[in-house]
This record gives sequence, C-alpha cells and structure tokens, in this order.
Amino acid sequence: MKEWSLFDEITSAKGVWLRDSKGNKTLDAVASMWCNVWGHSNQELINAITNQSKKLQHSSMFNLTNEPAEKLAEYLVKISPKMHKVFYSDNGSSAMEIAIKMALQYWKNIGEKNKTKIATLENGYHGDTFGAMSVGYVPEFFGKFKKQLFTTLQFPVPNKYRVPKGFTFLDYQNHCLEKIENEFAKRNNIAAFIMESGAQVAGGVIIYPKGFQNKINKLCKEYDVIFVLDEIATGFGRLGSMFQFQEQKNTPDIVAYGKMLTGGYLTMAATLTSKKVYDSFLGEFNDWKHLFHGHTYTGNPIAAAVALENLKMYKKYKLIEKIQSTSKIFEKYYQKILEIDIVGDIRHKGMLMGIELVTDKKKKTPIHPKKSINKIFFEEGKRHGIYLRTLGNIVMIVPPLAITKKELELLLEKTILTIKAARAQVI
Amino acid sequence: MKEWSLFDEITSAKGVWLRDSKGNKTLDAVASMWCNVWGHSNQELINAITNQSKKLQHSSMFNLTNEPAEKLAEYLVKISPKMHKVFYSDNGSSAMEIAIKMALQYWKNIGEKNKTKIATLENGYHGDTFGAMSVGYVPEFFGKFKKQLFTTLQFPVPNKYRVPKGFTFLDYQNHCLEKIENEFAKRNNIAAFIMESGAQVAGGVIIYPKGFQNKINKLCKEYDVIFVLDEIATGFGRLGSMFQFQEQKNTPDIVAYGKMLTGGYLTMAATLTSKKVYDSFLGEFNDWKHLFHGHTYTGNPIAAAVALENLKMYKKYKLIEKIQSTSKIFEKYYQKILEIDIVGDIRHKGMLMGIELVTDKKKKTPIHPKKSINKIFFEEGKRHGIYLRTLGNIVMIVPPLAITKKELELLLEKTILTIKAARAQVI
Repeated sequence: MKEWSLFDEITSAKGVWLRDSKGNKTLDAVASMWCNVWGHSNQELINAITNQSKKLQHSSMFNLTNEPAEKLAEYLVKISPKMHKVFYSDNGSSAMEIAIKMALQYWKNIGEKNKTKIATLENGYHGDTFGAMSVGYVPEFFGKFKKQLFTTLQFPVPNKYRVPKGFTFLDYQNHCLEKIENEFAKRNNIAAFIMESGAQVAGGVIIYPKGFQNKINKLCKEYDVIFVLDEIATGFGRLGSMFQFQEQKNTPDIVAYGKMLTGGYLTMAATLTSKKVYDSFLGEFNDWKHLFHGHTYTGNPIAAAVALENLKMYKKYKLIEKIQSTSKIFEKYYQKILEIDIVGDIRHKGMLMGIELVTDKKKKTPIHPKKSINKIFFEEGKRHGIYLRTLGNIVMIVPPLAITKKELELLLEKTILTIKAARAQVI
Repeated sequence: MKEWSLFDEITSAKGVWLRDSKGNKTLDAVASMWCNVWGHSNQELINAITNQSKKLQHSSMFNLTNEPAEKLAEYLVKISPKMHKVFYSDNGSSAMEIAIKMALQYWKNIGEKNKTKIATLENGYHGDTFGAMSVGYVPEFFGKFKKQLFTTLQFPVPNKYRVPKGFTFLDYQNHCLEKIENEFAKRNNIAAFIMESGAQVAGGVIIYPKGFQNKINKLCKEYDVIFVLDEIATGFGRLGSMFQFQEQKNTPDIVAYGKMLTGGYLTMAATLTSKKVYDSFLGEFNDWKHLFHGHTYTGNPIAAAVALENLKMYKKYKLIEKIQSTSKIFEKYYQKILEIDIVGDIRHKGMLMGIELVTDKKKKTPIHPKKSINKIFFEEGKRHGIYLRTLGNIVMIVPPLAITKKELELLLEKTILTIKAARAQVI
C-alpha cells in the first residue's frame, strides 16, 4: 500500500465520465468495479432513489417485509427461469456465503448427513469473506488465511490460451469434465458444485468453451449435486445476455446476483433458489429447518427501489439488444490490439474484454514487473483520460453497459495508447 | 419458515411509527433491527441522501476515493480515540470478516508465523458469514455449518443472572478472567481476542460487569494479542455512550462499526485500525503485505453522505446526553416488569433492555414453547401496536435512539401488556 500515498478524489460523475476534485475527467473503463449500467447520474435512477427516500428509508425484513423489496423479488423471480424465491443481502460475498449455507443445509434438511463437501473450479473467485474465499481459493490472494478456510474439491478449468502440453483444446475440455465426472461417481459426499456463470472474471476473463457449463449442470443432476451459479459479475447483460444460466440453458438450484442489480448506484445482492431447495427449509419452528442468516439492512427499500427501476429500464430501452450491437465494436479492434508486441491474447464476450500481457508472445510468459502492474496501468490510463484497472497481467475492459459505440471506440483507442505507453515499464 | 406464510408489508414510516399496506401503525420497538437513530423519514437525513444522489451515486474505491467517503473517514477517526484508518464495507458481518483478516495478517506481515489462533467469548455473536460464524459460534444457530467453520478458543462470559453453583458473581468474573490469562500465558499462538464491546447483544443482553472488558484489554497488551472490539450493535449511543471502548477506556487494535452508522437508512459498515496494525500493511507491491479485500460498493458516496450527516446530528442535537436522560425511563419500569410472573431478569443499559422469560422464577427455567417465541411475541406485540422481537427467551427493547420519553413510556406499557397477553401461550 506504500505505493499509493494519495488517491484521486472523485466528486461528481455523468454518463461514462468521472470528475475528480482537480477537475480532471476520466472515462470509467471498469464501470466503477463492473457494476455501472446506464452511466453515472442517470435521472430515472436518481428519481427512484429520491422518491423512495421520502417514503420509507428502511424497514427490517425480520418478521416484516416492505413494498420495494417485495416488488423486486417478484420481478427477479419472473425474469429468472425456474427460480422460486429471493434472499436479499448487501454484497456479492454475502450472497455467496448465503448460497453456500443454503447448499450445505439443504442436505441436512432432507436428512442426508453425508453430503458436506463443496466442489469448485480452480482459479474461481466468489468474494473476500471466509466462505467466499474458501470456494474461490486463489493462493496468491488468500494464502495468509488458509488455516481458517475450509477445503474444497478444485477442478481445472479449460483456458484456450494455456492448454497443457499434449492436449488439443477440445481434448483438454473433455479431460476437465471427465475429472469432475470421475470424482462425482467415486464419492457420495459432494453437497454442491459452485462456479461463476459463463466466465471466470476476476480469474482473468476465462470464458468457458461452449457446452462446458452445461455439461457440469448435467453431471450435477445425474449425481444429485446442488448446482450453484455465481452470476454476480456476469449476469444482467455483462456477457451479452440477461443471465448466463439462461443463455446456456442451465437449471441451477441456487443463483447469486449482485453488482449491476441496482444499476451501480447502491449496494445490494440477492441469492435465488429453486423450489426444491426452498421447500427443504419449510418446517415448524422446532424442526430447526430455517436458515440462520439475516443482515440488518437486508431488503433495504431504497436499494430495492433503484434496482427495480434499473431492471425495468433494461426492458424499456432494450438494453440486451443494444449490448449485443455495441459489443461488435470490440471485434473491430481485435487485430489492432493483438498487434501490440506485449499482448498475448484477448478474450471477449458481451461488454467484457480481457487483454493478457506477456513479455514473449511465443513462450506466453506473463509480464511480471517489480512495481504493481495495476498501478502502472492506472497511471498511464489516467494520462490518457481513462480509469483502467488490471488483474494480474490482464488489462480489464468492463465499461458501463449502456456505453455508446462512439464512447467505446474512444475507450479502446485510449486503451491501445495506454498499453503502448506502459510497455517500457512492464517488460 | 412454514409458520410465516405472510409477512406484513411496510409501505411508509415516520418517527418511531411504521405503517403497513393495510394502514396499521406499529411502534418500532427494535429500531428496525437495532439500527434506527432519529426515527424514520427524518428530513435532514433524507436531504443528505437526495443531495448526494444528484452529484455522485457511486464511484469505486479501487485506486480512487470519493468526497463523502473521505470526509466520513476523517470524522470517524476524529471521534474514535487512537484509531488511525478506516476500511469500509457493506454490513457488519463483512466488517468483522475484515477485522479477522487484519488481525491474522498483521502477524504474518511482521514475520510472526505462529500466531494464528483466535480467542473469543462463549455466546458471542459477530454476524452470519463463515468467518463471523466461526468467531461467534453458537451451536444452535450455526451447528449445521460446523465442518466449514474454523475453531476458536472460547472463554466463558459472566452472566449475573446465571452464575454457576459454588461461585459468587465476583468470584466467577475473576474465574473467567483467570481462564483467559492462564491460556494467554500457556500459549504463544493467539493472534487476537475478539469480543462484542460493552455487552453481548444477540446473546441475550449480557452486559459485562465493570472492569471485565478492561481487564481483557490489559491482558491483550500484556501478552501481545491483537484486541478486536465489535461495536456494531453497541456503539453510536446504544449503550449510552458514543463508543463502549471509549467509555471503558480500552485501547483496541481494531474496531468494527455498523448498524447505526448511517442513522438506519442505508447499509454501510467500517473497520477501524490503530496505527500499529495499519503500518504493518505498508510495503512495496511485491512484499504482498496489502489486504486482499474489497467489496464493489465499498465507500458508497450516498451511504457515506447520510452517515456523515447522521454523526454530525449527534453533536448538533446532543444525542448522547439525550439518551442518558431518556434511558432513565427504563428504570421507572423495572419493578413493574419484574413483577410479571414469567419475567426472571431484566438487563438494561442505555437504550437497550433485555427481558428474560422463565417458567419458574426460582429455578430460572427458560420458557421454551413448541411454537416460536418470536412469533408469539411478534403477533401479540402487533395486537398492542408494537413491532417486537425476541431472541430465544429474551424480549428485546431496542428503540430508535432519539425516541421521546413519552414514546418510550408508551412502548414499555405496551410491552408489559404484550408479555402478559402472551403468557398463556408460552408456559
């Protein structure tokens, strides 16, 4: 943290532009950590906040409910195929903790004591709290807390850019899936399989090959394993469809939403369950089948109101169609980005692009400078008028979903200039 | 959950009164889960939300900062003795997860690999996520997840109403403290001692005897153990002072805030650290001393703006003095409540009261009906116009902090009627 003595202070924002206290304007290339949908200071969303603020700011969901939370839950269930009920929380990590607890307790509730093990993918990310760190265990991030984390069964994930020697990509996919199936067949203690839906985002934009996620979905059904999908970063249009589990025709038992749920204005997350899972929690009080989980601000009316307005705007302004059209701009730039000598690979789907930086294109050696890559790119980005972040050796392009084609072109042009300008500092 | 087919839907609220969709008004006896400060629909707090909403709704704290979050952090440090820096999050559970991570990583950062064990009090509660469940492990709540929780050293907490046989209360306090000291002296692997500050609230309003917390504070200093205090439910005036660690003259290394931070309107939490802990995280990027933790909406400007306004109102309206005066109303009712034949004990400090229900005053047998006590009291409370909750066999009175004396009298009168009316259903 020593490298960061001062952060720029953002004081206002409009559309895709952030303005700091010195009057500098930068284009928000990461949608304020992957959550902004319509740009900043959208009047309809502001109205939703101010109108609800006048009526009811907060009311507890312990024994009560409130109007916006009820309406939002109904709407979420309506747009989420086969999902039955909604459990609110305050951030994605909490939504995943709830998902894990539901999956584990489901088996206890139906009297199956053996199923206590969680299966996951290597390189996954599900948040920073202890349960979330356990299921998304990346040693570099969370090694310091290993003693306090529970262990999972981790399976490899196929990355087209880094296929192990001796495999074709297709062979390797099948190899990964076979590993899962073999373990499912061998054990009878797997409670749940937990994975990000559509792609591993924090893990470096690893977009799953076609059919991969669906096959895991099928294996879960076949071997009676609860299938949990994390749509926090990938749902609500980020990868070009409303939900990845819908696009991929999966039938998860539990799904977690977050980030773009409120359009990027207030924090809120939700964990949805199928009827099967929900019903297992029904009982008389002394059956102790209920879930012991409830945050103070669960179902906050102001956050729910802005979330509902946000989701209605998806329909009103045909956002998913717009994303699919805007997303083509990325393709126009593939060649130009790949031509840069430190770019090894680009991975893109919907409104998400990861640019992997290497020191040697042939050997695919990841860049690894002494100074934080993130800081180098943040500073070069700023010089070029964009708020840019990297994850490891991956430059992340995650713009507000409603960015215009012109703005996205500008962003990609500036990204190319930034990578070229940063080149000397990273190799 | 079967018992609760329908929840009442709250549509608006004003002052201490909640209004549901059928037009019923109920007095919010639990401050919407212990977070409401000034009552609902307070105009100054609404203005803070609407004004900030127009300027900047959200901007990420990854590499950036924003105006309200900066100002709030400065203010929090100013009013929190010896605290040095603020780490934001979205709910109390997350704030505690961060506290645990900081405490564990502190020792790694300074090169001490042995200190990995966490010490806690029995019956404590710190939230519902896996780290929080581990340090606040109550078997009835979290037994289903035991396999996934890390173990802690749990020490008994002195409860004046339930002193073990053969002890005076004072002897038992000393016994509890000796147990801690003996273990501290015997082991050199204790990283941190984590406890609620001032009282265990969710554990049934167990108010620590005078000197108890301070002695633990001293033992932590003596044996070089990081002292973590959870002020989420007890800080910001709930127990009659701004912070319990201040009243009790403790010098914690890490403190967690939540609940009343925003006045009860939007979710936000914060973890504060001393300079010693903070400095251990400073290093060059490749030292890997930084904390891997960051929620998307960390430091949300709207939540920060309403929190700052809330805290300034504490000073402007002399809230702490007001609480100390209003709090005396509780004392007026001690006798009247204790006279009820199913009331075994009352415990009260500041704006918090726990009324413990028993079937036999002499034997102190906790009431334990087949149906949920909480549901029985919620329904009887509703009939008497109050929103009431129990925790186990404890009726919780946790009103909005700025409740007037008249309103509090009304609430306590109604509580007495509710307990009497519920009597037949619980014994």
